[in-house]
Amino acid sequence: MRIILPEIKELLGTKQQRIIRRVLSYFEPADIAEVWSDFTPEERLKLFNILDVKLAADIFEFLEEDQMIELLENLPARRKIAVLNEMSPDDRTDLFAALPAGEVEKIIPLLDLDEQNRARELLAYKANTAGGLMTTDYITVPETANIADALRELRTKGRDIDFIQNIYVVDKVHRLQGIIPLKNLLTATPRQRVERVMDGHFPSVGLEMDQEDVAHMFGKYDVISLPVLDKLGRIRGIITVDDVIDVIKEEASEDIYRFSASGVVDEYLSENPLIIARKRGMWLLVLALAGFVSGAVLEHYSFLLSSIVTLSFFIPILMNTSGSAGTQAATVVVRGLAIGDIKLRDIWRVVRKEFLIGIMVGILAGGVTALRAIVMQGDMMLGLTVATAMIIAIVFATSLGGLLPIIFKSLKVDPALMSGPLITTILDTAALLIYFNITFLLLWRR
Amino acid sequence: MRIILPEIKELLGTKQQRIIRRVLSYFEPADIAEVWSDFTPEERLKLFNILDVKLAADIFEFLEEDQMIELLENLPARRKIAVLNEMSPDDRTDLFAALPAGEVEKIIPLLDLDEQNRARELLAYKANTAGGLMTTDYITVPETANIADALRELRTKGRDIDFIQNIYVVDKVHRLQGIIPLKNLLTATPRQRVERVMDGHFPSVGLEMDQEDVAHMFGKYDVISLPVLDKLGRIRGIITVDDVIDVIKEEASEDIYRFSASGVVDEYLSENPLIIARKRGMWLLVLALAGFVSGAVLEHYSFLLSSIVTLSFFIPILMNTSGSAGTQAATVVVRGLAIGDIKLRDIWRVVRKEFLIGIMVGILAGGVTALRAIVMQGDMMLGLTVATAMIIAIVFATSLGGLLPIIFKSLKVDPALMSGPLITTILDTAALLIYFNITFLLLWRR
Repeated sequence: MRIILPEIKELLGTKQQRIIRRVLSYFEPADIAEVWSDFTPEERLKLFNILDVKLAADIFEFLEEDQMIELLENLPARRKIAVLNEMSPDDRTDLFAALPAGEVEKIIPLLDLDEQNRARELLAYKANTAGGLMTTDYITVPETANIADALRELRTKGRDIDFIQNIYVVDKVHRLQGIIPLKNLLTATPRQRVERVMDGHFPSVGLEMDQEDVAHMFGKYDVISLPVLDKLGRIRGIITVDDVIDVIKEEASEDIYRFSASGVVDEYLSENPLIIARKRGMWLLVLALAGFVSGAVLEHYSFLLSSIVTLSFFIPILMNTSGSAGTQAATVVVRGLAIGDIKLRDIWRVVRKEFLIGIMVGILAGGVTALRAIVMQGDMMLGLTVATAMIIAIVFATSLGGLLPIIFKSLKVDPALMSGPLITTILDTAALLIYFNITFLLLWRR
Repeated sequence: MRIILPEIKELLGTKQQRIIRRVLSYFEPADIAEVWSDFTPEERLKLFNILDVKLAADIFEFLEEDQMIELLENLPARRKIAVLNEMSPDDRTDLFAALPAGEVEKIIPLLDLDEQNRARELLAYKANTAGGLMTTDYITVPETANIADALRELRTKGRDIDFIQNIYVVDKVHRLQGIIPLKNLLTATPRQRVERVMDGHFPSVGLEMDQEDVAHMFGKYDVISLPVLDKLGRIRGIITVDDVIDVIKEEASEDIYRFSASGVVDEYLSENPLIIARKRGMWLLVLALAGFVSGAVLEHYSFLLSSIVTLSFFIPILMNTSGSAGTQAATVVVRGLAIGDIKLRDIWRVVRKEFLIGIMVGILAGGVTALRAIVMQGDMMLGLTVATAMIIAIVFATSLGGLLPIIFKSLKVDPALMSGPLITTILDTAALLIYFNITFLLLWRR
């Protein structure tokens, strides 16, 4: 797409609208949307007005929110309404959610009547629930219908719906009774009743189910779409798996941000730095306060530090290695709990494993550091002391890093809150205490 | 499902096989698979043998790999083959990939002939490419066919395929010419040629495309399935979006593990601790070696430390806050780059933002620490020194944490390698240098 951009820009300067339409019909809407920002605002508006309404609406759904809003503000009313009517209801709801409420109230009455109802209904659900994810683009038939009726319904309503996998069979009060995959519709005889063909056992989700649980349902049942039912069992919409992908990405980001205590930020680039700073600062404040403890430990043992100044040379490396080893362990366990690879009952298996890993990496890191003490400070005993402290501190770090997230989870606290900074703070103080006690034992008496 | 488990276990002790079959027909295969580990090995084998082959195969696909292997080892040959023939080709390939190669070579010849060919073809592709993700369960019609032919093909072959969204139209040498969504098949007239109904513009992926790129294609085009073409444009399989979900989860995990330098581990619980230790140890070794530098800095300034012992009390907190602040910034930017929210061209926007955030959180953390120095050590000048050093170190940390991942990305190095431990190491030395230089300026002369 990008390579023919200059030609399209040139054509836009002429009156060759038919050629532009022809050329663009060879491209996917997503590809055109991808280069949207390479056009000037005037070109964008002109191009969008030239295109066939269906293609325009398809491209529109792939644009970034700010690009959509730019178009809405500048399009002639007729085209604006046409595009909004064409949009799939769930994408339109996401767009409305990004607009000021007053703006939305002005737009909705301009839509077709049934689209108005859909829009209002979908806007009523919270964005992070099944109701907020679902679309109302689906086809139902009454349970008394036969296959021919279902096919007729499909022909009438199917044209406007992008994705159809199933026909939903409902009773008189719209309660979902069964599902007929499209392919079964094709293999059934026209006079068969839908009741005989439908599958009466099917997974479904509730309107208010949290989006993360919805994502788990898709993972568990390995399905492409799920019907959304209200408390009375009536079908209110369907969710397709592509909408769940965004949820999965969002949840992974949340875990990552929370674990590094970065604060969960939706739109990093456009967010006010003050708001980001407040989220991050809270954690740094906790760290700074925790520093009172590590400072007190140092103060308590300052008699050691002032008589053996070389001791202080090893404090950064000791804190760093134990902190990192603990974070490594905690990361693996937090993620394992999140994706279900690690269960609460695995607690001792995890701790045993981390204990072993701690011994191995501890000997490695401790050995290197001891070597340095021996070569650079020429002090065999100092090397032994530092290595011993480091091994113990690292074993403690990996074991605790494996243990704490599972304990958090069993207490129903998000394990990702057992974040890097938090565990580092605990481990720093622990490392210092271990270091000074071993120093006191091994070096002080000489 | 779990609540009727005792009843099923009891029924398994009797000869009431028909009742068991009836009861289980009310449940989803995924729900039965979920409680599989609650049965004893004998019960599992008995239950699996009792069930109707189709349901057994459906349950089988939802089992954990070790549960599958347990069954394969103990099932009578006839049932084993029946289940393997029923499995969808992509899931079967994943299972084969988990078995020893010799075992697979013994199993494949037992399959139906066309399943043998499919199995061998799929096994030839690398697991993390489009070829490794795709299934060969799809329906093609020649471009010379008409709609009635296509419907006939669908009726014959459709029964064994779980998910059908499209019919694929191919030329004489099997090159993909167009796609017909199932719903369009239903609205077309039987004598129309498929060529007239098909959509000739469609996104597709290459056989050897990396799975991460495949996932991006799904995200970009917002589709439910994508055809997989070889270099000559022939269709070799299709990928459905549900298989991509696992890829997205895997990639997110990889980013998380890499960023915390935990090493990428597939099966944490079953992996040998030595292997995990080797992956993590490599990073800790880098840290330990880097510790030579921070140690040298401390040694160089030991004249300051030995004359003002209180200085050392603030080293842990200084390193911790700047390290954490840098990791926070790096996390947000690494993740932003991974999901595409941050682009290379945003580099200065990011650095400016992180600079501002650094000032704000630096003043916060520095202020608290200064207060401590003033209250506990009763030394106003020391407080001022520590606070100044901390603010500068934190601003440096957030700016560098924002900058480095983008530089890595622009050098085509995975930004996630700009990991927590790596950035912490750089920042530690920087923090110490800043601290001692400011101390030297402000405190040494008094």
